[in-house]
Amino acid sequence: MNMQNVRKVRKSTAVLDALEIMRDFIASMVESGEHRLPSEEELATQLGISRLTVREAMTVLEREGVVVRFQGRGTLINHFVQRLTSRIDFAREIGKFIEEAGYTPSVDEVAFEWRLSTQDEASKLCLEEEQELLVVEKRFLADGEPAAFCIDRIPKSLFQQTDFTAHDLTKAIFPFVEQRCLCHLTHDVIEIIPVVAHEKLAKLLNVDVGSPLIRIDAVEYSAEGNPVMYNTEFYVDQFCRFTLCRSVAYIC
Amino acid sequence: MNMQNVRKVRKSTAVLDALEIMRDFIASMVESGEHRLPSEEELATQLGISRLTVREAMTVLEREGVVVRFQGRGTLINHFVQRLTSRIDFAREIGKFIEEAGYTPSVDEVAFEWRLSTQDEASKLCLEEEQELLVVEKRFLADGEPAAFCIDRIPKSLFQQTDFTAHDLTKAIFPFVEQRCLCHLTHDVIEIIPVVAHEKLAKLLNVDVGSPLIRIDAVEYSAEGNPVMYNTEFYVDQFCRFTLCRSVAYIC
Repeated sequence: MNMQNVRKVRKSTAVLDALEIMRDFIASMVESGEHRLPSEEELATQLGISRLTVREAMTVLEREGVVVRFQGRGTLINHFVQRLTSRIDFAREIGKFIEEAGYTPSVDEVAFEWRLSTQDEASKLCLEEEQELLVVEKRFLADGEPAAFCIDRIPKSLFQQTDFTAHDLTKAIFPFVEQRCLCHLTHDVIEIIPVVAHEKLAKLLNVDVGSPLIRIDAVEYSAEGNPVMYNTEFYVDQFCRFTLCRSVAYIC
Repeated sequence: MNMQNVRKVRKSTAVLDALEIMRDFIASMVESGEHRLPSEEELATQLGISRLTVREAMTVLEREGVVVRFQGRGTLINHFVQRLTSRIDFAREIGKFIEEAGYTPSVDEVAFEWRLSTQDEASKLCLEEEQELLVVEKRFLADGEPAAFCIDRIPKSLFQQTDFTAHDLTKAIFPFVEQRCLCHLTHDVIEIIPVVAHEKLAKLLNVDVGSPLIRIDAVEYSAEGNPVMYNTEFYVDQFCRFTLCRSVAYIC
């Protein structure tokens, strides 16, 4: 598979472009205090999007709680959802979460090593046996204060290029992995786990031993459905508190 | 507003029905080991749903990570997503989460009182001043073991009927509130907070003092966008570990 094929996945639907345009449009309506969206037909004309695509995008926005559609009464914007930051249903780089929460993010400690997988890692990455992994550890700061710590693991067998420096790893890990492993990360599965800081974590995150932290275990998948990366992330509540808006109607 | 109007909201879109049908269809495909979905046209014919609605529902399923659409290569089912339980993006009664995790849920302790709101409660429920609330406390068991504890608060002013018994409160709180307050709960906003068990919680949940717990603060909104209920929930990781599948593409 080459990058040409890989790119096709992300562009597979006009809905994503429409979503971006509609999110901006809704944000501008919220700013001017408006509550009611124009009809789908009017939106399509106004934004230069096909009506079918407008409807599809609206369904996603409704699922996300951004709008509520009323039969025969139009579509209303949920103003309070616009103010939500750190939504856990939007997969993002840790730095973005910190930024959204109103802090300036930075990375001040990066370490990496190649080592054999543990049993847990092999199981999460669907490896049939012990394999060499790239293991990256990074600390994120919010306005200079420790806010998060993550451990990212990628099987060496997936790499097409293994020549890089620690500096390459201070930047976002997603594009790094996509470029080096020639794949496209399309979705992830996360588990949300409550933990208390042991000594190493407490020191790294500048909290007392025994302080509560959110741990997120995430497995990142390629478009083909193969696990590519397994991340363990620790967040300090003060800087990163995750939120979510859920539509009761979309219960499965 | 009467229940007639209230009901219209939930039925506002044929997509919800289509989603239910398509989720069942996908589950049956997964069971028989299939990976590739029929085309939207074929699905529409086979399931007796309009093609437009099939496409809308497919967009929601893609957003949820259930399927991946490839340009010119059809739609694949993410088998691993089918096995995900306790998805945090599906708003549900606590008992349902416990059931999904493979345990038999029950409620063994229910208490309620009417009392004045605290400042935090007034702020979460958008009350302009101190107001009387119904406060319900419930403990949930998983196979007889304490698994979760919740505190639900509803302003007294929203009640149309206040005659009920503790027994009425052992059942699901959503329909109780919708019936007594003549409203329809359409969405909620949650915050995910790491905490450690203090003495009362440790006793209630049968864990050591200082054990990590997930606390979820949820505000439930009516279709009109008004806060109706404010819940604080504590979960024992062993019984309720929340998961989520996220599409990287749908980043806002």
